[in-house]
This record gives sequence, C-alpha cells and structure tokens, in this order.
Amino acid sequence: MHPTPPTALATNPFDDDKLKEECGVFGVVGVADAASFIALGLHALQHRGQEAGGIVTYDVDAGFQSARRFGYVRDNFTSQKVMETLPGPLGIGHVRYSTAGSKGNTAIRDVQPFFGEFSMGGAAIAHNGNITNAVALRRELIERGSIFQSSSDSECIIHLMARSLQRNIPERMKDALRRVEGAFSVVAMTRTKLIGVRDPMGVRPLVLGKIGDTGYCLSSETCALDIIGADFVREIEPGEMVVIQDGRVDSSKPFEPKKSRFCIFEHVYFSRPDSILEGRSVYETRRQIGVELAKEAPVDADMVCPVPDSGTPAAIGFAHESGIPYGMGIIRNQYMGRTFIEPSEQIRNMGVRLKLNVNRALIRDKRIILVDDSVVRGTTSQKIKDMLIDAGAAEVHFRIASPPTMWPCFYGVDTPDRDKLLAANMSVEQMRAHLGVDSLQFISLDGLYRAAGVSEGRDAVSPRYCDACFSGEYPVIPTDMVDKGFKLKEPAQ
Amino acid sequence: MHPTPPTALATNPFDDDKLKEECGVFGVVGVADAASFIALGLHALQHRGQEAGGIVTYDVDAGFQSARRFGYVRDNFTSQKVMETLPGPLGIGHVRYSTAGSKGNTAIRDVQPFFGEFSMGGAAIAHNGNITNAVALRRELIERGSIFQSSSDSECIIHLMARSLQRNIPERMKDALRRVEGAFSVVAMTRTKLIGVRDPMGVRPLVLGKIGDTGYCLSSETCALDIIGADFVREIEPGEMVVIQDGRVDSSKPFEPKKSRFCIFEHVYFSRPDSILEGRSVYETRRQIGVELAKEAPVDADMVCPVPDSGTPAAIGFAHESGIPYGMGIIRNQYMGRTFIEPSEQIRNMGVRLKLNVNRALIRDKRIILVDDSVVRGTTSQKIKDMLIDAGAAEVHFRIASPPTMWPCFYGVDTPDRDKLLAANMSVEQMRAHLGVDSLQFISLDGLYRAAGVSEGRDAVSPRYCDACFSGEYPVIPTDMVDKGFKLKEPAQ
Amino acid sequence: MHPTPPTALATNPFDDDKLKEECGVFGVVGVADAASFIALGLHALQHRGQEAGGIVTYDVDAGFQSARRFGYVRDNFTSQKVMETLPGPLGIGHVRYSTAGSKGNTAIRDVQPFFGEFSMGGAAIAHNGNITNAVALRRELIERGSIFQSSSDSECIIHLMARSLQRNIPERMKDALRRVEGAFSVVAMTRTKLIGVRDPMGVRPLVLGKIGDTGYCLSSETCALDIIGADFVREIEPGEMVVIQDGRVDSSKPFEPKKSRFCIFEHVYFSRPDSILEGRSVYETRRQIGVELAKEAPVDADMVCPVPDSGTPAAIGFAHESGIPYGMGIIRNQYMGRTFIEPSEQIRNMGVRLKLNVNRALIRDKRIILVDDSVVRGTTSQKIKDMLIDAGAAEVHFRIASPPTMWPCFYGVDTPDRDKLLAANMSVEQMRAHLGVDSLQFISLDGLYRAAGVSEGRDAVSPRYCDACFSGEYPVIPTDMVDKGFKLKEPAQ
Amino acid sequence: MHPTPPTALATNPFDDDKLKEECGVFGVVGVADAASFIALGLHALQHRGQEAGGIVTYDVDAGFQSARRFGYVRDNFTSQKVMETLPGPLGIGHVRYSTAGSKGNTAIRDVQPFFGEFSMGGAAIAHNGNITNAVALRRELIERGSIFQSSSDSECIIHLMARSLQRNIPERMKDALRRVEGAFSVVAMTRTKLIGVRDPMGVRPLVLGKIGDTGYCLSSETCALDIIGADFVREIEPGEMVVIQDGRVDSSKPFEPKKSRFCIFEHVYFSRPDSILEGRSVYETRRQIGVELAKEAPVDADMVCPVPDSGTPAAIGFAHESGIPYGMGIIRNQYMGRTFIEPSEQIRNMGVRLKLNVNRALIRDKRIILVDDSVVRGTTSQKIKDMLIDAGAAEVHFRIASPPTMWPCFYGVDTPDRDKLLAANMSVEQMRAHLGVDSLQFISLDGLYRAAGVSEGRDAVSPRYCDACFSGEYPVIPTDMVDKGFKLKEPAQ
Repeated sequence: MHPTPPTALATNPFDDDKLKEECGVFGVVGVADAASFIALGLHALQHRGQEAGGIVTYDVDAGFQSARRFGYVRDNFTSQKVMETLPGPLGIGHVRYSTAGSKGNTAIRDVQPFFGEFSMGGAAIAHNGNITNAVALRRELIERGSIFQSSSDSECIIHLMARSLQRNIPERMKDALRRVEGAFSVVAMTRTKLIGVRDPMGVRPLVLGKIGDTGYCLSSETCALDIIGADFVREIEPGEMVVIQDGRVDSSKPFEPKKSRFCIFEHVYFSRPDSILEGRSVYETRRQIGVELAKEAPVDADMVCPVPDSGTPAAIGFAHESGIPYGMGIIRNQYMGRTFIEPSEQIRNMGVRLKLNVNRALIRDKRIILVDDSVVRGTTSQKIKDMLIDAGAAEVHFRIASPPTMWPCFYGVDTPDRDKLLAANMSVEQMRAHLGVDSLQFISLDGLYRAAGVSEGRDAVSPRYCDACFSGEYPVIPTDMVDKGFKLKEPAQ
Repeated sequence: MHPTPPTALATNPFDDDKLKEECGVFGVVGVADAASFIALGLHALQHRGQEAGGIVTYDVDAGFQSARRFGYVRDNFTSQKVMETLPGPLGIGHVRYSTAGSKGNTAIRDVQPFFGEFSMGGAAIAHNGNITNAVALRRELIERGSIFQSSSDSECIIHLMARSLQRNIPERMKDALRRVEGAFSVVAMTRTKLIGVRDPMGVRPLVLGKIGDTGYCLSSETCALDIIGADFVREIEPGEMVVIQDGRVDSSKPFEPKKSRFCIFEHVYFSRPDSILEGRSVYETRRQIGVELAKEAPVDADMVCPVPDSGTPAAIGFAHESGIPYGMGIIRNQYMGRTFIEPSEQIRNMGVRLKLNVNRALIRDKRIILVDDSVVRGTTSQKIKDMLIDAGAAEVHFRIASPPTMWPCFYGVDTPDRDKLLAANMSVEQMRAHLGVDSLQFISLDGLYRAAGVSEGRDAVSPRYCDACFSGEYPVIPTDMVDKGFKLKEPAQ
Repeated sequence: MHPTPPTALATNPFDDDKLKEECGVFGVVGVADAASFIALGLHALQHRGQEAGGIVTYDVDAGFQSARRFGYVRDNFTSQKVMETLPGPLGIGHVRYSTAGSKGNTAIRDVQPFFGEFSMGGAAIAHNGNITNAVALRRELIERGSIFQSSSDSECIIHLMARSLQRNIPERMKDALRRVEGAFSVVAMTRTKLIGVRDPMGVRPLVLGKIGDTGYCLSSETCALDIIGADFVREIEPGEMVVIQDGRVDSSKPFEPKKSRFCIFEHVYFSRPDSILEGRSVYETRRQIGVELAKEAPVDADMVCPVPDSGTPAAIGFAHESGIPYGMGIIRNQYMGRTFIEPSEQIRNMGVRLKLNVNRALIRDKRIILVDDSVVRGTTSQKIKDMLIDAGAAEVHFRIASPPTMWPCFYGVDTPDRDKLLAANMSVEQMRAHLGVDSLQFISLDGLYRAAGVSEGRDAVSPRYCDACFSGEYPVIPTDMVDKGFKLKEPAQ
Repeated sequence: MHPTPPTALATNPFDDDKLKEECGVFGVVGVADAASFIALGLHALQHRGQEAGGIVTYDVDAGFQSARRFGYVRDNFTSQKVMETLPGPLGIGHVRYSTAGSKGNTAIRDVQPFFGEFSMGGAAIAHNGNITNAVALRRELIERGSIFQSSSDSECIIHLMARSLQRNIPERMKDALRRVEGAFSVVAMTRTKLIGVRDPMGVRPLVLGKIGDTGYCLSSETCALDIIGADFVREIEPGEMVVIQDGRVDSSKPFEPKKSRFCIFEHVYFSRPDSILEGRSVYETRRQIGVELAKEAPVDADMVCPVPDSGTPAAIGFAHESGIPYGMGIIRNQYMGRTFIEPSEQIRNMGVRLKLNVNRALIRDKRIILVDDSVVRGTTSQKIKDMLIDAGAAEVHFRIASPPTMWPCFYGVDTPDRDKLLAANMSVEQMRAHLGVDSLQFISLDGLYRAAGVSEGRDAVSPRYCDACFSGEYPVIPTDMVDKGFKLKEPAQ
C-alpha cells in the first residue's frame, strides 16, 4: 500500500536501541495565553516523545481550539500564525512517541489531546502511560455504539466519560478511570477546569506548579516548570485527582488505595537529569548509580567514558568513586540527523556515526571503561565498541547503569518483544562475548535501589518501585497482552 | 481567535453572490484501482464543491485508507504518492463547499467521507444534502454518549448506525436514515459493498453507472460517468437504496413513500450543462429557459450577452428566439484567482475584474441584453452593469434565468439569510433601480417549469419540483431552523 | 538523473497540441505600490505563460527586491507576506511558459525578470520574444568573461548592457539591443525609470497605459490595463523605446527602421479576445474569421460547435454568417487539471476528458460543424472527433480559423519541430482522412488577412504581418537555428 | 520592506553571544555517488554553519547539478528525491552561517557553491574564510561588465576566473586567488578535477582524506573524515593548491610564501572537539586550557561546572587540575529550539531557558566555578549567572577558556562591532561587576599558547597563530574595513 522505501538509508540505530517513554503531558490554567506556556513546557518534555505533539486550548470567544502535528515542538508551535489559533487562559498539551509504522496518512488522528463534546460541554484529555485492558474496553464500547477516531488506547477514556451518567466532567472522569487498568498520568480540561490524575500506583510522574499569583500548571516533570519560571508545589500523589479552577486546587482520591509503585526507569533514563522525582535529583541518582557501580564492578583502566548523553552522570560518579580520570571519548553530533542516504561504498557502523564519533586522539592505546544507561537490543553497544577498537582503544570495559533488561514494559514504554531483548536471551557472559568487550557488568537491582535512596536495597516482598522490566514482576496484570498470549514469569516456588 | 486579516484584499465577489451546492459524491466498486476512478469522478463534480475533498478506499491487505484535503481534486489527488496510499477495488469520495469561517485548523475533521468502526466491521459514508433535524439528533446522541468528530450534520448518520441493533451495515443504514429528515443522497461503503441511497423526495441527484464488465459507480451527476467512460444505467429513485456487491445491484425502498420533489435549481445552476437530469439535458433546459424568457420579457436591443459561464446557455436560447445577435460582451479570465492584494489607488469593481472583463470594442454604444442565471445579493450584478456602462454600453437590459430568489434553501445549498437576499427585500422595480439597469425581468415560475419540460407549468397544489427558494414552500419542515426562530411563509388563506 | 516518473499519468493533451506564446510582460511606475498592480496585470496576462512568474520592484529604502516562482500568479503573488517583500512605486513583471523538461531544481534561475548591478546602479529586464542570435552572443560573452546565471536567451541583453561603455542605462540598453536579432518586446527598470522597447518589426505587442494622474504602465496586452483600471494611451511603435520617469514619457527610435511585421497569430490565438491589437478588437477579428470561413468553406449541417474556448468567437461568426444554430456541443471543465493517475482500465481519450466533455444530448444524431483555432499536431483534434462520434454525432465537419501551420516559429512561440506539425507532413485531404472527419477546411491566408482588416488580402511581396508559421517566410533569419541545420524554405523561382 | 515581526519572540540568545564560524567546505572525487558522501561530510561540519547548505555534483550524463537550501543538512539532503538529482562521482559542498537580515526571498543566491560556465567548461567553488579586499574587487569587476549573482564576497573568485586569460581552470584559479586578500580555504571542481587551496597564511583549516582505493576528499575538519570512514592523509599546507584527478594528487604553491598564522580560535571554539588540527586533538587542547586556567586562576569552591557544551573540556581539565569535583550544574535541552512565542507573563531569561536549565538540586548552596569558552557580548553569561543564583548557588566564579575578545575578526568569522564586545569596552574588574559574579578570570594569551602546544608561550614578534581577536594584531590588513573607517590598533611605541 505504501510507496517502496528507498533502498539504502542509514538509520540512526539509537532510535531502535533504547526503551522509549511514550509521552509527556502538560497543562496550564489561569494565565493570559496558555498555549505559549504549553509550547515551552512541551519543549522541555520533548525527550519523552519526539514524533508528534498537540495542544488544545479554550477561550470564551473562540471555544475549544486544537493543533496537532508530527514533529518537534520547536518546529510546530513557534510560529505566531499557529499560536494565534490557540487563544485562551487554559489548555493542555501532549508529546508522544509513535512507532514508525503508524505514521501513515491518517495517523494524525492518533495524536493527543483527544477531545469529546458531552451534553454538559466539551473536555479534552492527554494521557501518559498505557491502558492494559484497552482492547477489551474498546470492544465493549464499539458494541454499544461508540465510534473511535483513533487507534490509541487513550481514546477509551473519553468514550467511557461520554457514557457516564454523572452530571459533571470530573465525576465522569472518575467513573471512566475506575474502569481503566494500567498506568496513567492524565491531564484534562473543561471550559473552566484543569484536571490532573495519577493511577493508584503512581507509575508515571505528574507534578503541580504555580505560575505567578493566579496560574497553575501540571507537568510530567519539573524541568518543564523551570522553563516557564513556575514554582514547584508538589507531586500529584498516586491515586489522586486534582481539579484546578479560579486559583483553587481541589484534591480527591477516587480509587481504591494501592501501594505506590513508581517506575524506576524514570530515574535511570526517561526523565531529564535536571528534573526532581520523589524529592530526589535525577542527576544525583544517576551519579550515585555510577558510584555504586564502581563499588560493585571495579576494574583497572585509564579512563572512564560515558556514552553521551544518557551515560554521562553515571560515568561522572564512576570516575569520582574509582579515581580514574573522566574523559569525553565519544563526541555527540549536536545536529543529530536520523536518516541519510548511504553511500554505495559500505561505511561500517554508519548509522551510529550520524550521532556519535570517537575522539580518536584521546582513546588511542587506552583502557576504557565505557558507561551506558542500559542494554536493550545491544546493536548500538556493539557498534560503539567497534568504533572504539577501530580508534585504537587497548581495552573496553562496559558498565551498565541498570540491571539487565529482560522483560517488556506494558505501562507506557515502547519495548521490543522478549526475543529482541539481549538480556532475555543471554547470560551476562554470553552478552560480553556477543558484544566483544573485555568485561561487562550491570548494576545489581539492590545497587540501583540504593542509588535511588532506598538504603536497604529492594524489598523482595513489597518493592518500592515498578521494576518489571528487570524483575518480570508486573504490579498490574497486562490483561490485553495475556489475552494475546504473553507468558508471565512463573512465580518462584 | 484568528490572525488579523490583511487590510486590503480584493475578493472575487462571485464567491459570495451565488447559491452554492454544498457537495458532490462518487463511489465505485469492482475495478482494479478505485481511487483513480474516484479522483476523476470528483474532478468532474468539482463544480459542486471546491473547498475540500476526500476519498476512502478498502483493500484486503491495507484495510480502510483515507485521504482528506482542502483544495481542488486536481491538486490533491493526482500525485502517485497520495494515490498509492489509497489501494483497493472499492471506495467512495466527496467534494464539499465549506463556509469560509470554518476553515480553521481543525476543520479537516469536517471533510467527508466519515468513517466508523462497528462490531461487524467498518463503514464509510459521504453525503450530499442537508439533515434538517441534525441539531436535535446530535443533542440526543451526545446525551447517550456518542462523541462527535466534526461539526457536520452528516456525522449523525454514522452515529445512528453505530447504535442500531441491526446485525449488518445496510440494515443499520436504513435504521439510521429513517431517523433523518431533510435531503440526502448518500454513498457508503463497507469492506465489500457499495451502497447508494436517496431521500424519499429525491431532492438531490444520484445516478448509477457501469464500468466495463464488473464495475459499478454511483455519482451525483452523469458528467462524472463520461470522464471515466462509464455507461449511464439509471437514476437511483427517490427513496431507493441500492447495495452493490460482486456485480449485483440489489434495490430496496426502506422509507415511507412520498411524492418526488427534485431540486429545480439543479437544472438552473448547480448541475453541469453536460449532465442529464431526469432524462433531460441540463444544457437544453437552460437554453429553453432563454427561449421562454425571450417570449416573456422581450426587449429591443443590439446584442445578447451572457454573464459567463452560468448565463451562457440561456443567452444562446434568448438570442435564438429573439433573433438578436449573440456576442461575448464579457470575457472570463480562465485562471480565475480568488483574492489579490488591492492596490492603494482604489480600483472600481476590482473583485469582479479578477474573473471578468468587458469586451470593450464589442460593447461600445450598443444596447445590451445581459443574461444571468440568478440574482442572490445583487452585488456582482451591479458591478457587471457598472463595467458595461464604463465601457460605453448604451443600454443594459437584465434578464434572469430563474425567478426571484426569496427564500433560503435548507437542503444542502449555501444561501444567505433572508435579509441578504435582494429579492426578499425589494420589488422587481426596486431591484431594477437599485441595480441601475434600464430594465430587469425574471423568468416566471411557470416559464421555468415549462422550460424544464412541464408543459402545463407549475401545479400549485402538488408541484413537481422543490422550488422553496422561489416559492417559500418547503416540502420538508426545516426543524432545526424553525427551532432557531426561522419564520415560515404564512399559508395563503 | 531524475526519479523515475509514475507509470500511468493521463496528461492533458491540450498542453502539447497548441502553439504556446512564451511570455507576457508588465511594468508600472508612479504608483503607491507597484507590486499589487503588477500582480493584477500578470494575472490578466496569465494566458501568455502559466509555468512561472516573477516581479522586481525598487524602493528607496529596500532597494531592488524580487520574487520569482513556478506556478500561477493567483497562487504566488496574492499573499500579503510575499507582496510586502516587494515595496516601491516602480516595478516590472513577467509570466512565462517553459518546456516541462527544464523544470528541474535549478530552473528558477531561468525565470525573469533578470537583474544586473552596473557601476551606475542596477537594472532589471523582462522580455517577450526570442533572440535568434542568442547562441552566438552567449558564446562571445562567455569568452570575454561573462558568467551566465540562466539558460535563457534573454540574459544576453543584461550582459551586453553590463559591457556597454555608455554612462546611463537607457543608452546601454540601446547598445545591447542593437546587437540582438529576433523579436523582442522588453520592459526594463532602473531605480527611477520604467523603460519599454519593441523590436524594429514590432513582432510582439506592447502597449502604454496611464494610471490616475501620475502613473504609467506598459503591458503586452490591453486586457491587463482593464483589470487595473488604467487608460489605454497607445501602442509602443515598432523600433521605439520609451523611457518613463516623473510622469514624463520620452520616446526615441534607436534602431534602423524596418517595415512592421506584427505576429498574425496574436490575432488568431495568443492574445485574449478582450484585448485590442493595432486598434482592432481581437474578438471581432476572430468572429470575422468565422464569417470568412463560412463563406470560403460552407457546409450543410445542424449545428456549429466551437472547441472551447479558443474556437468560440470564430464559431459565433460562422453560425451567424451561415444561419446554422450555434450550440455548446463541448463543455469545458472549469477546474482543468493537468495530470491524473490513469485507472488501469484503459479509458479512451482520457487526457482530453480532464478538460472537455461532449454534451451528449445535444450532439446525438446531429451533423456538427466543429470550429477550432488551429491544428498543430492534430492529436487533440482526433480525440475530440472520437468523443463526438461516440456521443452519436451524425457527421463532423472540421473548420479551422487559421491556415495550415507548416513552419515553426522562432520569435517567442513554442512550436514543435516540423516533423511533428501535421500540416507540414500531409495535404489537407490526408489530414482529413487522418483525423477521420467528414470534411476539413482551413481559412485561406488571404481570408485571414481580410478578417484582420486587410481588405485586399495578403501582399505577397511585402506582407503586413509575420505569418512565417503559415508561409515559411521568416522576416528575420533565425541564425542560431540555421547554424544547427534548420532548412529555410526554398525561395520561389 | 519585511512584514512586521511578531511582537514577543523569545530568541535563543546563544545565537547572538558567540563568535560564529561562517563556513565549512567538503569535496569528494572518485567515488560512486559523491553527493551522499558530501551530505554526510557536511552533516559532520554542521557546527561551522547552520543557516544554509549547498551541493554541486558533476555527472557525464546529467552535467553539473546543484541544490542549495536554507536549513540543516539533515533536513535538506536526506531525501532520496533530492539526492537523485545530484548524481556523479565528483562534487563539492558548503555549509554557511548567514546573518539573520539577509535571509530574505532572494538570498538563496548567496548560498554556495557558486558556479560559472567558462569557455573551456564549468567550474564550481565553495569558500571558507573572508576576502578582505572584496569590495574593491567587486567594484572593479562590475566596472568591467561582470554581473554578480549574489552579495557574497566569495563570488569575486569565480568572476576573476572568468576573466583570466589562462586556458585551464586550475591556472585560472591561481590567477584569481593571487588577486584576493584575506583568509580562504577553497574547494573547487571542474568536470574531472577536485581542487583545494589554502591562503598563504593558512588561517582556515583544510585537510585531505582518502576513501577506499580510488577516492579522495577535502574537508574543513577531520571529524568529517570519520563519519564517512575516510583515512586522514594530511593537512593542505598554507599556500598550497592540490588538484585531484584519476586518483592522483598534484600539489603546487602558487603564492608568495608567508609565515603560517592559523586561527587560534579554531582550537578554542570553532572546530569540533573530536577533530585534529595541526596534529593536535582539539579536545585535548581545550582540556589543557582548563588545566592552565586552574593554575593561573585558582579559587576555593565546591564544584566545577561547564557551560555546555563548549565549556565542557576546559571544565574537565580545570576540575582535574584543581581536584574540585566536576558536575553538570547546567543541563542542555537536546532539542534546542531557536525562537518561541513568549508568554505574556514575563519569564526571566526565557531565551536562555530554551537551551539550558540549571540542575537546581545540585547547585543549591554550593560555590560554583563556571567555565565557558569565551565572553563576547556577555549577555548570555549574565543570564546563566542569574539562573545559578536563582537556583541557590552560594558563589559563582567565572573562568574563561580564552583571553578577552577585544577585536573583531575579518577572516571568516561573524563578530559584533567593537562597541558590542564587552572586553573592548570594560576592564576585567568592570566586567566582573557588570556580570555580577564573585570572581572573573580569563586565561592569558601565553597560557592559551601553552595549552595549544607552544610551550614557550606567544612570540610577540612573530606569533605562531592569528590571534587578532585578542591582540588586535591583524596579519592581513582588512582593506575594505579600513576603507569604511575601521581604526586599527596603534602600534606599540
């Protein structure tokens, strides 16, 4: 159905070899021009989703207005012409990652926020997370006559709201979200209210900020508060709903209480290092992972090099703890570039070269400790190692700032199937041999918990975090996936 | 909400001073590449709607695919890249006129065909006409939890279908259309069927054509059959539904029978002159209107000039009947052009000049009979008259190929409010003085009926056509408009 | 070097089967915003070139500014954003036809006006016509160190000006144009002057208009004066240069005088019917051609039908003279459309159907006199005939409003090579058989001269017009073409 | 002349507060598809110019082809459609920085490579550097009849070549470049040859690389060799011309010999840290600057923070030498973004926030040593300091990895006028007070030379580098600027 793709495109393999957060959300109320704040907030959250973004605002005269586009916030939401179409003091926005295949000619329908007109007025919602019973809900809703606009799991929420018998939107939203399983941090809006909700386990982050005297904002991360000069107020709590109107924040807890299970990978990779999660600096946690790693997996070497940028804080911590000098052995091209036509002479590891280059003069004849945040498929790791060896590195010791990634995430993260996850299919020693490095070590799960501030390590019975990608222990049963045949981990005898 | 418009734009007044058909529909089944046929068919129907167009196709591998765009078919549906995204042997398309104001950044949602996924599979529909109880239906559907994607009245149909308890799509469509009031010619499709329906009075046209041995098509007009080389089979009858699959055309009559009331303005202006409506050549009817007009309203003059192109056939008929030479006193710019920046020196009637120019050498010192299809607001008529006088015309006699347009249409035509309709607010003599012409005459309603082949003229009790725009006699009560305060004509005592 | 073209595009054959005027020029001085006037003027001249257009203006603060674009004036020069980049009271513009092949990625360089910076300031020129010794001039200029920006013959003029030893621009222009052979109507501008020149034989038109009290304009045709409300002053004479500044028009005759040889095809086809050439209405000349043709080539038939729109005035004249009714047997699609993907079922004459449709009900069983302006390759004529026959015409008699086109034009018209010109390779009877019509007649050259107001017909020794395309008598030897091997007609013994 | 700019745009101040290298050049010969190599090479050189880029190739069948675009290489030269228009085994490319003002609608003419057709065939050139006598040369060339296509100084070279009496292109190029003063690294091409030249003092870099067995490339920096897997052969020497054809590299020295004066700012900031200049790692020189700076300007503090990314290597060196921990106190937004609509509530330092954010948790209550590469206007430095103080830093000590920038560069770098250079108008203490930091120190010129490997420091009589921006000692008199009134530094008595 689609035109034949060009034959030889060098694609940046980074795009395939990282777990990807699927969304960032941002909402604002009580300011003169919500859309400008949202554009800035989404720009600061761009690392959570680069494929598309959308903004919905409400203005008394113009009503609800929306703009949804593929591409970066900086390209789509910076022209005066676009921003003038989004007037009003209240709005929400969303950035998303989408798998390449769905970027066909109708997929703009899948870009959030989603909007619904109810009898008591309209509402828009934007969702970070994943609904694990969406397939079942969708089937049920279609049977009752709902018409879906998109292929997104998140659209279920708005249809459930449409069918609620409650007479106001926040109550309808509670009704709807009580039917939903999985992970969700939602921002929503009516004509007058900004609403934020986190699922009962609080898997995805959501924070509240204050803008000047009258304004409030909700954001996936605190870094988006900084860009607009908002003050951090507090995190929305797991299972909490806040409704903000006229400078007042009303809080309620509509769900059955559960033990909090925040995603530990937000600390490891997803969130920006300048964000603060659960009162902890993300940068500091990552640096501390490096410290733990240096203790757990020391090695004699000449230089500690990060794989930029995600490995940098851990490499700084590792260097500090080990006393081995820190150096930028790999340099990132600031201008990135995702695909280029590949010259006919085969260039080794060309994809990775679009983004990274080895600092040859620095590397030559040195024993290198290479620090990265995680190993997913391992394809990029192998290419980076090749480049280091080509440049004359004497030894390459690979240290990973997370435990082996062995299980897919079903809570709003794009992960490959298990058979593509290197660690699900090989032992650490097999991986070392496969990657061709002199040594390979991952931080332990306990070490990771310690770096994240849990000094006693992981509580096996009731762990503080969702660490399903490492442990295979899923706090919410992924119903749709199990229906499709996904095999859960056998419980330990 | 929108950016300030440029200060001095010369807008082609033709855009405001004609009644506008709101839609054309086209569907095809049983061919190798439906989308190419649809693009050609819609191109031939472009006069029925120039603002936007859409195509939906179904292919076993690709599923339902759609493309909806603002602008002309020739610009949107001619690139191989776009057409390759629309594979399959079955599809429907739509061209539409939309009021300028709704062309904001979300209005692509209003572009048909509309698509809905039901439990037994998907369906798409495209609609020509207008649902006169759409506001009420929409309110009811929203109250029951339907979420509308667009502001279009046509979307009601798909939601009514979604909620039907019938187990197949044609039956659901019958259910839905029985709830709908107004005028509709609908083409629809499932994964295997092409469906066509006309409302019980058959206000808007819809014809069936045959393509080669296996294919069928449905079209608003026959001119779209000609462009693809299809053979005309017959008109879909008022109140008829046809379901076409595997080379078989199944017909049914799902509605309570009513007397047919085809739109007479299709003969006067909307349809293309090379189309055949109700077995009559549109060109011939228009030429005959000119003949009738020459009989009803003769005048001594030197030349009969049409306002091109809509007045041309009637002018030819008038010239032939009157023996006064026919001449092209007004020349149309083929390249049209809708808006230009107006030079600061004020140019009289600049808007009209973007499209028309007087053939000065021909006009000078002559007594001109100017023939146009209708007078709506009268703004263009006045400007054309000014241009003729400036060019030295000795006299201008204005002859109109339709009766005075006094009432708005609610059946799928864009008409101004009554206070903007010149004939609703002035007598013919007042209009003559207002336009500043030497004489002004409209064809009579009886004369129009005679030209359309009803030799006895209009039957006052049971007229053959819908002529509400002239007579104020609405065959279907426009419920929504009456709810909004529209005053129907007092019945004659 | 270019991507493979799509396999099945139906191309409108009209694009290939007409002689094409290559350019229109327009200039204005002494108004508040020259660019708006120029955009309107070029819009009115769009029929002289549809592929690209350009405008250059001069403003004391902004200096020379230019915008050159592929496509229609209505699409490129109507946005406020573009027009604001073209400030000033003085400017020139150009529309051009370019052969499809040269529309590669650098060809915007070939779009006029051309600009050159000289030691005494800048100048811009726009040219309608063709320089017949351009190849030789270009070679000479390159040998002396000139660097050409384009592949256009017209660029020679600006390089010749750059090398002139004269100290002001009008004198440099005279120097340059005295070196140039061929046909040229040039508009040019300095920072303060608008300049117009016609070649010594005046092959291409150029007229002078007055705008209000202070402004002047130069235009290829008078129809562009009408659109901006300018008053026609006079034609620029063959061999005349006018320099307009501060409301003063200075005239000079810089060339050796020659007998005027205006292009007769401007009367037949190139110019718009509402233009006035040499004091004669183009429409009236064309209508008169029809009258002459009816006298020269009468035939018994039921209806006279034009091939719209170029055959329309002659058909009106033919009908009037013959007394046979005039009818619109062929209807033009107003929305044209140049290429569409062709459906896999082969549609006969699909290309022509994108633009024309037969008015079937009118044609059936009738003997048709079909009037067209010319026969070039004959491909379209044949397809139109096929469509008429398919629709049931009883007989088709083809009448052509110009003599057989047997020779290419080298004076600014795009003509096929001789071996592609039907009339250069067949007798009239052979053409009739080839086209498959019942009769075929062309107007005689004398008849054409009479219709154009030369009552005594063509003077064989010293004809009033350039009619080389019919007679093979080239008033200027086409040097470059002769160098390339073009064979001139043997002089009669 | 241009549309009114939007009223409130937050512009990234980084764009104004850095010296900007104006160009990068890349050429390749002897490969299967030159354009793909060039695109990759230019992508690696993107830091040398982000506003526009161009590629010219030559292919026997297609001839010379070019594509020139505004924007990034990754956006313009990665589509198959574009790259297919650039066939052939030989080509050159260019990336450039252009001042904002010249990005009007004609400025694409200023984008290199420039092309000229000579009598012996065509040539294209791309230039990094600046011609200091370009105004005088241009005036002379225009007086002799050359017509310039652009406002670029580099175009002089091609016109001088066009007028040379030499019979082959390399000799013409020598002729041309002997007339040129200033700094230039040029890559050029004919139909068969790739040519590289550096000015006699070798101010700008240019290196030679080898691709496989048959190919060669020329590049501004070695980092572009790495991306295509080319082997570094050697630097082109100051005053050297190389002509590469059929796998042979011919070298000549066409200019009068001068002492080499390579630009020291290439080491400090312009070049990428993974490039090798004059046999030295750029990263290592920068790290060494940090070491020198820690010795010259020690201070008691808690953390060394770079201004990312340009201050990073020096900060690493400073931390290492001083023993004070290194930390990422400032985090860069990877997705940059140049302008956003500014929300009406004034956000302090919003421009800087588009790119940088303070790592609040890390900074709070700490004494920070902030390391940056240079201070130009000082506007950004001040804002970063503000952000640190807002985040709770206890002290801010500013250390600069270059001496005070007191003089503009005229050799291919975009520098503000002297009155905008902070260091040209204030003492170091005044700057400290102006910036509001606790201490401020620049590296000494001797320290900088030592870090760059000149262990004895700067030789005042015959310095090894061009350091005019620091010292005011211009190795080539900037003729055009002196003509415009620029005052050179008084020679020391």
